[in-house]
Amino acid sequence: MKQINRVAIVGGTHGNEFTGAYLIQKFAQFPNLITRSSFETVTLLANPHAFAAGRRYVEKDLNRCFLKQDLQDSTLKTYEELQAKLIQDTLASNGDKQADFILDLHSSTANMGLTMILVNSHPLNLKLAAYLSQVNPFVKIYRCSFKSVAENPFVNSLCELGFAIEVGPIAQGILKATLFQQTQELVHTVLDYLEQFNQGEIPSNKETLILYDHLSVVDYPKNPDGTIFGMIHPELQDKDYQALNPGDPIFITFNDKTIVYEGTSTVWPIFINEAAYYEKGIAMCLTQRQQINI
Amino acid sequence: MKQINRVAIVGGTHGNEFTGAYLIQKFAQFPNLITRSSFETVTLLANPHAFAAGRRYVEKDLNRCFLKQDLQDSTLKTYEELQAKLIQDTLASNGDKQADFILDLHSSTANMGLTMILVNSHPLNLKLAAYLSQVNPFVKIYRCSFKSVAENPFVNSLCELGFAIEVGPIAQGILKATLFQQTQELVHTVLDYLEQFNQGEIPSNKETLILYDHLSVVDYPKNPDGTIFGMIHPELQDKDYQALNPGDPIFITFNDKTIVYEGTSTVWPIFINEAAYYEKGIAMCLTQRQQINI
Repeated sequence: MKQINRVAIVGGTHGNEFTGAYLIQKFAQFPNLITRSSFETVTLLANPHAFAAGRRYVEKDLNRCFLKQDLQDSTLKTYEELQAKLIQDTLASNGDKQADFILDLHSSTANMGLTMILVNSHPLNLKLAAYLSQVNPFVKIYRCSFKSVAENPFVNSLCELGFAIEVGPIAQGILKATLFQQTQELVHTVLDYLEQFNQGEIPSNKETLILYDHLSVVDYPKNPDGTIFGMIHPELQDKDYQALNPGDPIFITFNDKTIVYEGTSTVWPIFINEAAYYEKGIAMCLTQRQQINI
Repeated sequence: MKQINRVAIVGGTHGNEFTGAYLIQKFAQFPNLITRSSFETVTLLANPHAFAAGRRYVEKDLNRCFLKQDLQDSTLKTYEELQAKLIQDTLASNGDKQADFILDLHSSTANMGLTMILVNSHPLNLKLAAYLSQVNPFVKIYRCSFKSVAENPFVNSLCELGFAIEVGPIAQGILKATLFQQTQELVHTVLDYLEQFNQGEIPSNKETLILYDHLSVVDYPKNPDGTIFGMIHPELQDKDYQALNPGDPIFITFNDKTIVYEGTSTVWPIFINEAAYYEKGIAMCLTQRQQINI
């Protein structure tokens, strides 16, 4: 495989996810932290207007603006749609500037720990995932595959290498020092790994990896008018990545009735009670835990 | 003292504080929960536009719009300024509609537990505070007094009886079932207390009360351009209502230097790392813990 020449660290794709946005600013101020000998590292504050406003986005969720067809559609002109095209020009135009690896830093109100979100199964991504989860037991690997890269609306669609990091639980619009430091550590570990990769010295890995593969999303219980009438059950709150079995409580209605999971087999929910997903109609994402050989 | 004829429960004063906003909707749907024989109970969703947008406010923080001079200023016409005048008309115009007691439901990303925010020292408010903190050890009493009611910009300035409830920690834009239920319980206890008050049967109280009196606010460490360069120290995060002594860590800078509290005596910080206060330049509020006789 070819060398990695340029690594992009992206933060503030969502303007109210401060961990990534402020880490980017720290790295910009102290570039020696992310300098490695065999590649260039660049930083990008992806949605500066939303960050200034302390909001996820100004007009449209930037991390849903990277569908290939949308990037090519000159009629799309919201702030985030234009910003997505600018980011594509910056990180994915052919030539010297092209990023070979993109790390996109996010945070979640759900108990996501330190999650790597893979959008493909490139062997280097999988090996890196195995390495990170070996080095740090808080690291979890969530794989959200798309039939084709053209269907992937995330920043990470711009480059086959790399992934998003989703850390939590943390409220929107704040910094938590512990998560900030853990995220920074994880970035350093990724950069060190890529440095060793370039030098032909990939750290030895376990040959297996625990992956949580995306299955489906579950919406909140809703009235015909679209308003919700229940919330995450106390027994499920903060239980991301734990087995959920048929019959287990998932919601409690406002008048105290329990709603149970009615699937036919065990699933592993994540993004449980993510604030930004209320408007998307997502109370949690269900995944399938599996061990794969790499 | 005169009877209480009308109690107003207000929620969604901040549109992204879902606990209160959804409790209001629950009470509106199940009015028997808040019906008591000796007074009328009304509910009010204070900032419906901000709630619909999932934001604290649309143009201006509604809970800073209740200064008497602003309510009388016909040139103030932002959405929230107009909404404040409407709420004043609804709850504080003389006549049948006037509320005798206002309960305003808030939530915080800080570890506020179940905090009552007193804006005055009316004997009934203090007795109720003593009762609530006796019934439930999670209840804390924070007193933020104003020199005169005219200087109080909060919803609760409309009425001398009542207070705000601040529950946390909870991210903006989500519901947590446990806090939702605890807040509902607290509302029920308040209503039951007022019912007994009207019937001349105030529950017996301890004669002392632990109060946290507002002293001052502390801003984040900031660069000359106004950007922050540090965050709440891990040892202080979630330590609301715990003693902070001179020399104790309060912040950690982005380059890992600890900043300590340089006051001369012990204080009790609250609202530590409240998301909505970043824009207000408030990293925490310092209070003085004291036991008072009532």
